[in-house]
Amino acid sequence: MYSTMQDVPLTVARILQHGSTIHGRSTVTTWTEDGPVVRTFAEVGARAAQLAHALHEQLGVVDGEPVGTLMWNNTEHQEAYLAIPSMGAVLHTLNLRLPAHQLVYIVQHAADRVVIVNGSVLPLLAAVLPQLAGTVEHVVVSGGYDPALLAGFGGTVHDYEDLLAGRPTDYPWQTDIDEKQAAALCYTSGTTGDPKGVVYSHRSIYLHSMQIIAASSFGLTARDTVLPVVPMFHVNAWGIPHAAFMTGASLLMPDRFLQPEPLATMIDRVKPTFGAAVPTIWTGLLDELDAGDYDTSTLETVVIGGSACPPALMKAFEERHGIRVIHAWGMTETSPLGTVAHPPAGVTGEEEWAYRVTQGVFPSSVQARLIGPGGEAVPHDGVAEGELEVRGPWIAGAYFGGAGHEADAPEDKFSPDGWLRTGDVGTITADGYLTLTDRAKDVIKSGGEWISSVALENHLMAHPEVAEAAVVAVPDEKWGERPLATVVLRPGATAGLPELRAFLAERVASWQLPERWSVIESVPKTSVGKFDKKVIRADYAADRLAVTLLGKGEQRGQGEQGEQGGRAEQG
Amino acid sequence: MYSTMQDVPLTVARILQHGSTIHGRSTVTTWTEDGPVVRTFAEVGARAAQLAHALHEQLGVVDGEPVGTLMWNNTEHQEAYLAIPSMGAVLHTLNLRLPAHQLVYIVQHAADRVVIVNGSVLPLLAAVLPQLAGTVEHVVVSGGYDPALLAGFGGTVHDYEDLLAGRPTDYPWQTDIDEKQAAALCYTSGTTGDPKGVVYSHRSIYLHSMQIIAASSFGLTARDTVLPVVPMFHVNAWGIPHAAFMTGASLLMPDRFLQPEPLATMIDRVKPTFGAAVPTIWTGLLDELDAGDYDTSTLETVVIGGSACPPALMKAFEERHGIRVIHAWGMTETSPLGTVAHPPAGVTGEEEWAYRVTQGVFPSSVQARLIGPGGEAVPHDGVAEGELEVRGPWIAGAYFGGAGHEADAPEDKFSPDGWLRTGDVGTITADGYLTLTDRAKDVIKSGGEWISSVALENHLMAHPEVAEAAVVAVPDEKWGERPLATVVLRPGATAGLPELRAFLAERVASWQLPERWSVIESVPKTSVGKFDKKVIRADYAADRLAVTLLGKGEQRGQGEQGEQGGRAEQG
Repeated sequence: MYSTMQDVPLTVARILQHGSTIHGRSTVTTWTEDGPVVRTFAEVGARAAQLAHALHEQLGVVDGEPVGTLMWNNTEHQEAYLAIPSMGAVLHTLNLRLPAHQLVYIVQHAADRVVIVNGSVLPLLAAVLPQLAGTVEHVVVSGGYDPALLAGFGGTVHDYEDLLAGRPTDYPWQTDIDEKQAAALCYTSGTTGDPKGVVYSHRSIYLHSMQIIAASSFGLTARDTVLPVVPMFHVNAWGIPHAAFMTGASLLMPDRFLQPEPLATMIDRVKPTFGAAVPTIWTGLLDELDAGDYDTSTLETVVIGGSACPPALMKAFEERHGIRVIHAWGMTETSPLGTVAHPPAGVTGEEEWAYRVTQGVFPSSVQARLIGPGGEAVPHDGVAEGELEVRGPWIAGAYFGGAGHEADAPEDKFSPDGWLRTGDVGTITADGYLTLTDRAKDVIKSGGEWISSVALENHLMAHPEVAEAAVVAVPDEKWGERPLATVVLRPGATAGLPELRAFLAERVASWQLPERWSVIESVPKTSVGKFDKKVIRADYAADRLAVTLLGKGEQRGQGEQGEQGGRAEQG
Repeated sequence: MYSTMQDVPLTVARILQHGSTIHGRSTVTTWTEDGPVVRTFAEVGARAAQLAHALHEQLGVVDGEPVGTLMWNNTEHQEAYLAIPSMGAVLHTLNLRLPAHQLVYIVQHAADRVVIVNGSVLPLLAAVLPQLAGTVEHVVVSGGYDPALLAGFGGTVHDYEDLLAGRPTDYPWQTDIDEKQAAALCYTSGTTGDPKGVVYSHRSIYLHSMQIIAASSFGLTARDTVLPVVPMFHVNAWGIPHAAFMTGASLLMPDRFLQPEPLATMIDRVKPTFGAAVPTIWTGLLDELDAGDYDTSTLETVVIGGSACPPALMKAFEERHGIRVIHAWGMTETSPLGTVAHPPAGVTGEEEWAYRVTQGVFPSSVQARLIGPGGEAVPHDGVAEGELEVRGPWIAGAYFGGAGHEADAPEDKFSPDGWLRTGDVGTITADGYLTLTDRAKDVIKSGGEWISSVALENHLMAHPEVAEAAVVAVPDEKWGERPLATVVLRPGATAGLPELRAFLAERVASWQLPERWSVIESVPKTSVGKFDKKVIRADYAADRLAVTLLGKGEQRGQGEQGEQGGRAEQG
């Protein structure tokens, strides 16, 4: 039996139409050097129509064609977010923090013929345009810039405002297309291999927006003003640009003013009610708020994703400024909403905090399972660890052009039954709260069990004389892999490695204790400041580390005697 | 370009799985003669699996087969709501307030082979079972009942609990079906013609549930307990049963205890945070709360739909009991969520009330247009009136079996381009707030303009000597239709009809003033207490009313002189 419901597709165009009419009085405010610039949703909708006319009629953009944006969070980027998918083209957000060679790769891989760029980031694009000859034909610049930057460019340069001026303020938006058609494209900035493109559909964006406005997720309404500090070129600014138009929530766009002082000032002046940020920027903001005289009383909630926010920081914001920090987890491949850490009903105090420091709970549209070391699903009991795999209508099942998909290969990003392998390792409680403990590539696979590198690092770094510690997997004849602990000692430290090992032995199971230890000068870091464990593993393989063996003989002996007994005998 | 998103359907089974695991500790409480009976979502999920096994294996229910429910709001009905669609069958809610002949028609039209019924309403079903021989083969009774009632029944009778007992508590739920497949069926209780079936899909129920939990709609979370007073056999209890499992909101089911005293008692004891009701029941509750000593402090919001709630009642609940009453509009054909009357940002006081007394604002998934007397779309300016037509993924585009769909006929319930003709007449503001002024069939179509019968009635009933007033359209040679005013005077009234006409003349345009007046004993009512205008029109046509003509001569004269001038000259 088939239903008698109307066959109405879920489209970005519907979001645009709804937001620019019913919520026409809501506003997008962009922070500039001269203070806030405000446009209503009705004006943004009209300008989106002008942009679509320009792209289609003057630049020849056709259905299904990607249009690149290299932009901060601002009104013009919001116009592109709405216009490009709604006209039938594909919004391709370009990450302005990528190294030049990755930017070139991505623009070429997507074949972006048109790129819209903020004048303030034009130098980044201009530097690679010579390599993009034959790909990029049109550069549309929003905001002031130095024309000399584009002197050698063989294509056409357009001023964003000139391009829009005088064009019709309505457009035959594509509301009746196949909802599984592409609407947006974003490449992951994977640390290994080439970047991979995730193609969002109209359906996935619409459903994701509905989840964002759910009271159990971000709960946005027309009474909110949202400050997306997380960039629109990174995980779609948590989906806020589209969700805001769906629900009428006003937007406060920080553009490039992501430093503590302008952020504090714009909060004080424009009075957002809700924010979305990453921990690094939010840490700096706390000091500014503590020191300055800012009114942040309207700001009730800030969602922090990307990486976990230290509980001390969460408590400081809540106690000193009345700002509730909520954890969330997601990734480019998950649109990004995966989990949000609202505590369940009926918990208070420390029990509530135990929930709030997790990555959060899954909504109905995100199914989750944990795959253990042996490839088997492990229970959701808050203890068993496994690699997180997820399934749902806004979760990627492939990459653009088939990249990263090699059937049944261990490095495949997707399981044979189509679930996304997140590369994150963690636990899930019976009531669905996710805690991530490590990256799958960093976990130490020792004798059929997993050892979390992050857990060992955290224990080691709790020692007063340890400045930093990085634990990596190294090959081991008997166990497959074993942990190598590299530590950076604080100046004047007196503790030796045996003492550190004893310190660790009080905190973890004996089979998890590293045998291989090395004192290093500093932990190698990636461009975004994360531990670069590839480098440590390579240094070990090339014998560039001075490694001390501790306790290996006797532990190995015990392990050999009791091998049948499982975990407790390992190592 | 197609997206790389996973192809995951939206299903009721996913809602069931999610609710019964991640929200397994949330509860369904049913009010009984012996007080509250509580089951967790995990238990309800397990019992839903047992029900599905019983229906499939013992009663032979197959994919796509409707299963009837004739039940109050209780845990067993919730189990049916989840189990029947999730096993691939179709939940068919039967309205226990319908006249017997309509119940027979509906069960036969849907071909319900299995009906689940509460023992307390078994007499209703038993009375019509003889007429349903050949259709109903299995009656499943939940709760105690008198077996003598079923003595003559030729099919099989099952006790609900016996049927479930000992069966497996998990089931291979159909999570990977076509989301446009039928999930539920509900017949409208139209006052004219045969009832018509609306077939909801898995997709429509899933999307509707996502809208219900949006902060801008009902905003339900796992911290809520919801009291659905509106029946599960009527507009799906506003979609709350499925939405609750999607978001983990606990449920307080009133069963048949819909009188003010038990309602007040269950609110006091079980402490719901959110309610959904109809004005009649809520009016009685106010008196009970005023008189009694009940703690209703947890109950923050009650949504009232079906018909408008008098502002005085809304204010009384808010001022005296801290309960915020929110208007909503919907119908069986709209799943039912059409509009919710949360005021926009930045309005307070009387301006806020002006928004709150409307039917509310449309969400992004419900498109609306107003079709005026000439068949043209009229502007959304808060003034122009038209028949409301809606479009969206949870709006009916047909009836089961094609009923009610006669292409291009004026009585067609669907427009040629597939929009639902709601039969309601009203206005929409530029910011999307709907105010209903009349039913399309009751509006008076006079000389190409519409006169609202409801507006004239409300003005007349504001006269201190008028007890009731009903205005209907009667044929008029010149204008097509003109209003006939029928009034019931209060005992001892001294006002004559000319005085009432003068009273009305101060309040409406002259062309809207009725010429035909009749004093009647009482206004005929339907079984649910609404004015039965069919009867009045029939009485007029059969010359059974004593009609006084007032002002017809001179007004008609004016109208003839100034016909070209439009509205002001009519009548």
